[in-house]
Amino acid sequence: MNDLTINLDVHSSVPLYEQIYKYIKKEIQSGGLPFGERLPSTRKLAKYLQVSRTTVDMAYEQLVSEGYIEAKPYKGYFICELEGLYHLEPESAPEKPEKAAVSETYRYDFSPNGVDLNSFPQNAWRKLSKGILLEENRLLFQLGDPQGEYELRGTIAQYLHQARGVEAAPEQIIIGAGNDFLLLLLCSMFGTGQRIAMESPTYKKAYDLFRNLSNEVRIVEMDESGMRIDQLADTDAQIAYVMPSHQYPLGTVMPVKRRMQLLEWAGTAPGRYIIEDDYDSEFRYKGKPIPALQGYDRHDRVIYIGTFSKSIAPAIRVSYMVLPKQLMELYRRRGRTISCTVSRVDQMLIAAFLNEGYYERHLNKMRAVYKGRHDVLLEELRAFRRVCRISGENAGVHILLTFTNGMKEAEAVSRAAERGVKVYGLSWYFVGEAKLPAEETVILGYANLQEEEIRDAAACLKEAWLEAV
Amino acid sequence: MNDLTINLDVHSSVPLYEQIYKYIKKEIQSGGLPFGERLPSTRKLAKYLQVSRTTVDMAYEQLVSEGYIEAKPYKGYFICELEGLYHLEPESAPEKPEKAAVSETYRYDFSPNGVDLNSFPQNAWRKLSKGILLEENRLLFQLGDPQGEYELRGTIAQYLHQARGVEAAPEQIIIGAGNDFLLLLLCSMFGTGQRIAMESPTYKKAYDLFRNLSNEVRIVEMDESGMRIDQLADTDAQIAYVMPSHQYPLGTVMPVKRRMQLLEWAGTAPGRYIIEDDYDSEFRYKGKPIPALQGYDRHDRVIYIGTFSKSIAPAIRVSYMVLPKQLMELYRRRGRTISCTVSRVDQMLIAAFLNEGYYERHLNKMRAVYKGRHDVLLEELRAFRRVCRISGENAGVHILLTFTNGMKEAEAVSRAAERGVKVYGLSWYFVGEAKLPAEETVILGYANLQEEEIRDAAACLKEAWLEAV
Repeated sequence: MNDLTINLDVHSSVPLYEQIYKYIKKEIQSGGLPFGERLPSTRKLAKYLQVSRTTVDMAYEQLVSEGYIEAKPYKGYFICELEGLYHLEPESAPEKPEKAAVSETYRYDFSPNGVDLNSFPQNAWRKLSKGILLEENRLLFQLGDPQGEYELRGTIAQYLHQARGVEAAPEQIIIGAGNDFLLLLLCSMFGTGQRIAMESPTYKKAYDLFRNLSNEVRIVEMDESGMRIDQLADTDAQIAYVMPSHQYPLGTVMPVKRRMQLLEWAGTAPGRYIIEDDYDSEFRYKGKPIPALQGYDRHDRVIYIGTFSKSIAPAIRVSYMVLPKQLMELYRRRGRTISCTVSRVDQMLIAAFLNEGYYERHLNKMRAVYKGRHDVLLEELRAFRRVCRISGENAGVHILLTFTNGMKEAEAVSRAAERGVKVYGLSWYFVGEAKLPAEETVILGYANLQEEEIRDAAACLKEAWLEAV
Repeated sequence: MNDLTINLDVHSSVPLYEQIYKYIKKEIQSGGLPFGERLPSTRKLAKYLQVSRTTVDMAYEQLVSEGYIEAKPYKGYFICELEGLYHLEPESAPEKPEKAAVSETYRYDFSPNGVDLNSFPQNAWRKLSKGILLEENRLLFQLGDPQGEYELRGTIAQYLHQARGVEAAPEQIIIGAGNDFLLLLLCSMFGTGQRIAMESPTYKKAYDLFRNLSNEVRIVEMDESGMRIDQLADTDAQIAYVMPSHQYPLGTVMPVKRRMQLLEWAGTAPGRYIIEDDYDSEFRYKGKPIPALQGYDRHDRVIYIGTFSKSIAPAIRVSYMVLPKQLMELYRRRGRTISCTVSRVDQMLIAAFLNEGYYERHLNKMRAVYKGRHDVLLEELRAFRRVCRISGENAGVHILLTFTNGMKEAEAVSRAAERGVKVYGLSWYFVGEAKLPAEETVILGYANLQEEEIRDAAACLKEAWLEAV
């Protein structure tokens, strides 16, 4: 029998029992202690190593629990067969291939998909997270309801009622890891071959997703109130996908009258539905927010989708969908088979964030931050009035500039780029075979730029677009 | 001007500045402090309330940051317009509708979907989680790579290589919130109308999901080595969905020879793929684990899917998919549009859990626990040898009992239920129009029962199935 000469380091931060455990484990893995060999008794080894017997007991217990040794009553501890035991050797991490640092060449990026991350309430988040993981609540690690935790759904129902005028019982709400996932789930419920009306330009991911799953997309034109209902009615679409709070990317806010017409369209034929993507409704800087379309719906036809990714942080993958009552049966039959895509810990975290008032504070703070940036940007853009028209302001986190002096989108984008400013052309967002517009519009998102940065970037844009003309 | 008579509670755990902030916020919300009103100066209010000026400063700053008041230089603090500000009133949580407590009537539940939750390493998990949230790494809350974090993919690539013989570069790995989501993603990439070969019985969720997205499923019979390749070759299927490590629900382990035949089938015609669902490959109790099918693949045709939900805990919604190199272009075109469904915090957590050796320890511990339960169950089932045959043992966390004495599945299930034991009939897992078997088989999952409970439950089953015969 091996004498197990272990060099214990009493000054190490690694506990003694763990040093013993690791030594023996390594000996077993390397074959130094072969299958069937008997280990010294805990009393003997403790005496030999001059440690307490409890220390050796703990080391042996750990080895037993992981299957390296087994205890035979009245005989002692024996090395187990290693077959099937995991022995994972940490290797050096693979080197990430260098990415071409394209974004580095820009000093200011007016990305329409930004979020202000300095406002992320990291302390509150950490505190809540710690509290949830401290609970001796192992149920958190069991598979939960495919729809999401009832508690979170109840909290979201209350929030949507108060903030967006949405009428929803927790039973109608489905939690999912992002809007894209919820749209996938919807497609899987409805089955393929749906005819879906969309605006152009629109949220391109939704367009691609619908078409990848063999649905047919009907493009409907927009006017200053949003999707044209007269055109919609002329199509054979059963489903209309809209963003009434702040259309992406045009920023159009659908007025109440148009909302009523859209709901009327849905109500006049069986099987018609509206997907209301309320992706950034949280931010509106002038007047009262218009309640969600869903709140006016008397025909039970609106599928409402919202997200915490925009309002808290993009890496928080939590979105929610409110289904009309009449679709719940379809969900139970074809949607519930898919397990919830959000971990229960994250669900409890979001519920606590809302219930303990953090979300209210956070929204108001973000709104103040974004309003400040919005106002500074509009102020700076006054100088551009003679060469362009502004639209999509007063809500969301981006606006549009349409040149009225004949400057083309591509030229505007490249001139800005020469001065180190990234702006986004609108034409990228057009889908289908709808007629392309004059391509004179660029998008400026301001969520991710400080007020001072916006002023500096605007000065660059003046050089790019005004002085050169 | 209101004198703001705030009853401060110096003994409260709520900081004084927060008490002042809350009082003023409430006054603004209720209209007690109307739009445009000037607040007392911080010096004056501090004196009046007998608190430090810093305390009042902090309260006012909070109110400014949330948009309730604004600071006008040289003039003071004024109440803002409330329109658009969020005011979320916590309501009492909605009561959850009582669920019929069906599971209560069973003393022992041999669920095949169980996981031992007592083994969940909650302390390690909490420690790692705290460490990740403590990092001043706000990038964690930015939208990450749609494929998942490169670091986690690298870690998984190493793990899969060592533990499963899978050959994968991090670039081929896609992280998703559960196997169901990854299958949805695959469907969305391939487009609808695929012809997919499945065994029967099989994983019903996958069957439903494929069909909901308008794919055609071809049922292929199984023998004792798994899917019959001669039958597969006779179908027009392009994709074969298999679980070679431990077929669900039959527990069949596909031997190497059959694996080679399956790979051969895929390699002999263009556009053929194999989906290898390796859902519980981590647990094998006899002999060395057979490497994954993917590791033998010379034709770049295997799509490998695995999950941490089975091996860590079901509420951990993290799965991974290895795509063949030749499918990466399709993924970039049609899959990358969908944002990653796992939060970056969870991804870093899993990466740390693997990199710091916790996963190795956890797997070995779980394996020892499950092996113990597996061995006890098999030992207890010896008494049943004259009336039934055992299959699917030595791997996974469930086994099958097929009655040889003419007892039907329904009778076995209901007799067990009368003694308070829930067992599962195999016939539920059959799909399509394949011929149903004799319906004489039940499934016993043992992951969620302690060894002593298994002994007690087996005693009940003896009464149910032996004494009554």
